[in-house]
Amino acid sequence: MSDVKLLSAPVPPGGTIGILGGGQLGRMLAMAAARLGLKVHIYSDVADAPAFQVCDAHTVAAYEDEAALAKFASSCNAVTYEFENVPSKAAAVLATIKPTNPNAKALAVAQDRFDEKSFVTALGLKTAPFAAVNAANDATDAFAKIGGPAVLKTRCFGYDGKGQAKVKSAEECIAAFASFKSVPSILEGFVNFDFEASVVAVRGADGRFAAYDPAENAHENHILARSVVPSRLTAKQVEDAKAIAHTIADALDYVGVLGVELFMQPDGTLLVNEIAPRVHNSGHWTIEACIVSQFENHIRAVAGWPLGSTDRHSDAVMENLIGEQAADFKALAAKGGGLHLYGKSEIRAGRKMGHITYLKPRSS
Amino acid sequence: MSDVKLLSAPVPPGGTIGILGGGQLGRMLAMAAARLGLKVHIYSDVADAPAFQVCDAHTVAAYEDEAALAKFASSCNAVTYEFENVPSKAAAVLATIKPTNPNAKALAVAQDRFDEKSFVTALGLKTAPFAAVNAANDATDAFAKIGGPAVLKTRCFGYDGKGQAKVKSAEECIAAFASFKSVPSILEGFVNFDFEASVVAVRGADGRFAAYDPAENAHENHILARSVVPSRLTAKQVEDAKAIAHTIADALDYVGVLGVELFMQPDGTLLVNEIAPRVHNSGHWTIEACIVSQFENHIRAVAGWPLGSTDRHSDAVMENLIGEQAADFKALAAKGGGLHLYGKSEIRAGRKMGHITYLKPRSS
Repeated sequence: MSDVKLLSAPVPPGGTIGILGGGQLGRMLAMAAARLGLKVHIYSDVADAPAFQVCDAHTVAAYEDEAALAKFASSCNAVTYEFENVPSKAAAVLATIKPTNPNAKALAVAQDRFDEKSFVTALGLKTAPFAAVNAANDATDAFAKIGGPAVLKTRCFGYDGKGQAKVKSAEECIAAFASFKSVPSILEGFVNFDFEASVVAVRGADGRFAAYDPAENAHENHILARSVVPSRLTAKQVEDAKAIAHTIADALDYVGVLGVELFMQPDGTLLVNEIAPRVHNSGHWTIEACIVSQFENHIRAVAGWPLGSTDRHSDAVMENLIGEQAADFKALAAKGGGLHLYGKSEIRAGRKMGHITYLKPRSS
Repeated sequence: MSDVKLLSAPVPPGGTIGILGGGQLGRMLAMAAARLGLKVHIYSDVADAPAFQVCDAHTVAAYEDEAALAKFASSCNAVTYEFENVPSKAAAVLATIKPTNPNAKALAVAQDRFDEKSFVTALGLKTAPFAAVNAANDATDAFAKIGGPAVLKTRCFGYDGKGQAKVKSAEECIAAFASFKSVPSILEGFVNFDFEASVVAVRGADGRFAAYDPAENAHENHILARSVVPSRLTAKQVEDAKAIAHTIADALDYVGVLGVELFMQPDGTLLVNEIAPRVHNSGHWTIEACIVSQFENHIRAVAGWPLGSTDRHSDAVMENLIGEQAADFKALAAKGGGLHLYGKSEIRAGRKMGHITYLKPRSS
């Protein structure tokens, strides 16, 4: 798009960063922006979005409401998102009015699992084996190519294990595709891996790149439960992981923080599992363990500021508080970690309510 | 006052902390409260107070507007202040409606330099020599008692060197008193000291006490320029300094964070210079160097939560950004520290615009 607005100068203190999405990521982004003297305008389709509690201005409107989006963008100096499933039309409306990052290409790649894996493999990076299942009659060929067991996923709008089905035969693959109402899907082969790691990295408006040390992640019920830094990656693998994020960020001409989830295979190979074009749950530990957090570095990047250091001064363990795990706030507050509660109006099963980060002196 | 409201239970996440004052301290308190899932209502007499940018609700009204104060307090679960010069009438109005800390006694002691020094010496702690100058004919006696050079200060409402005059004779003392429009004043003897240190400490609603390591402070033009942790205090003196803060906090039945400024004399004696019944500029380094900052511990205390750890994981140097020192935000952002800009609408000479904190691995 030739009419996309680019940053011509850094957003000065007192300027306004627009953030699409008002959940915990928007909230922590808003607080990071405030640290730098920047104002924040949050746009959300939810009337009581948690980020509204910590921002200078907010808009409640649908992500398809182009007039509201245009008015919102006009009130800001630069715009960003807290989530990757921003409708491409909304992103296009915003980007023609104000500098909007991450850019449309990053959103498009991250919104479609097939495009994402195709993009990654085209860069010479490795992923799990995959095949498109865009119609019922793709399923048999796809299963023959990938083998079983495998997992069928909708290409778009899946998260935290939603829109996923394990399949052990072509028949199960066909049935799963039907259960997804035949929306375009992708069949992914299971891969052997010792653990999942993720790199949270940032690329500035000037193309400068920096990455935090990778975290090792543990999931429960398909939701991130715990991130540990340092991970079990060797020093060489840490560099490899950061290089993967660097390759992806450069290829997308990316501005902002991105998360790259990796599978560490028994032979030491790193597979790219997923690209998140936003701040990432596995980077929450950076608030306590680094002088500049992932949230502030994202704001610095989209505001055209110099990036902050991604060095960590401590080892860290971050534990998510899911649903009822957040209920006993007094006990949590007494645990000795850095406690974060997200201001959500009610506790619901499976809902990310907060997190807690523990530090230890740096071991490596 | 028998009708003062006390906390009967901790303020739960989603509850509201009211903060009187909307400057940088209120702003950083609001951000700390948000971390815990608490909402914040800021009350300020300034229409564009920086803290308004990061809170859930705000009120613009005079600190003497009892109806506005009452309405504000009614909307909150607990109330606190960012500054000690809260009119005692305002504090009384608030305290009869909702639990309000620090309490009236702490405010009264901190608002009057003579009462403060009298209170401190009654606890068996040391201060500079002092004498009241409540009328012109006190000046000669006071100067005879204290000797010169000395400094005449208004008893109330002085800060950052305002309302202070150095005097070298009884005549100069009389003239200075007249220049202060004969408001009640205090004559303080100069004391020899190697450096100023400050303890930032916190006392919980349950009476639990904790203190951060003392900072060593350097001033320029009567405004704090730099705080360094660790200070040059020996391990024994660090314990003495914390014990002084503990004695003061207990004597005031204090709830919240307080700052105690100390003069370190050449013979190793610690003199109490000033008590600040609030978060303190010399404690800003705790945001980066501790897992729970002074701001969060203040919120925890006034909300009735368990206190967080006051341990520091790193050494720290905090530099204030005064006036034009904050102008080149790009250069500041590139310096490698934790940068904080306060969202003030314009740079003015002598105005605290922000600060920057540098960390180093812990040395002691």
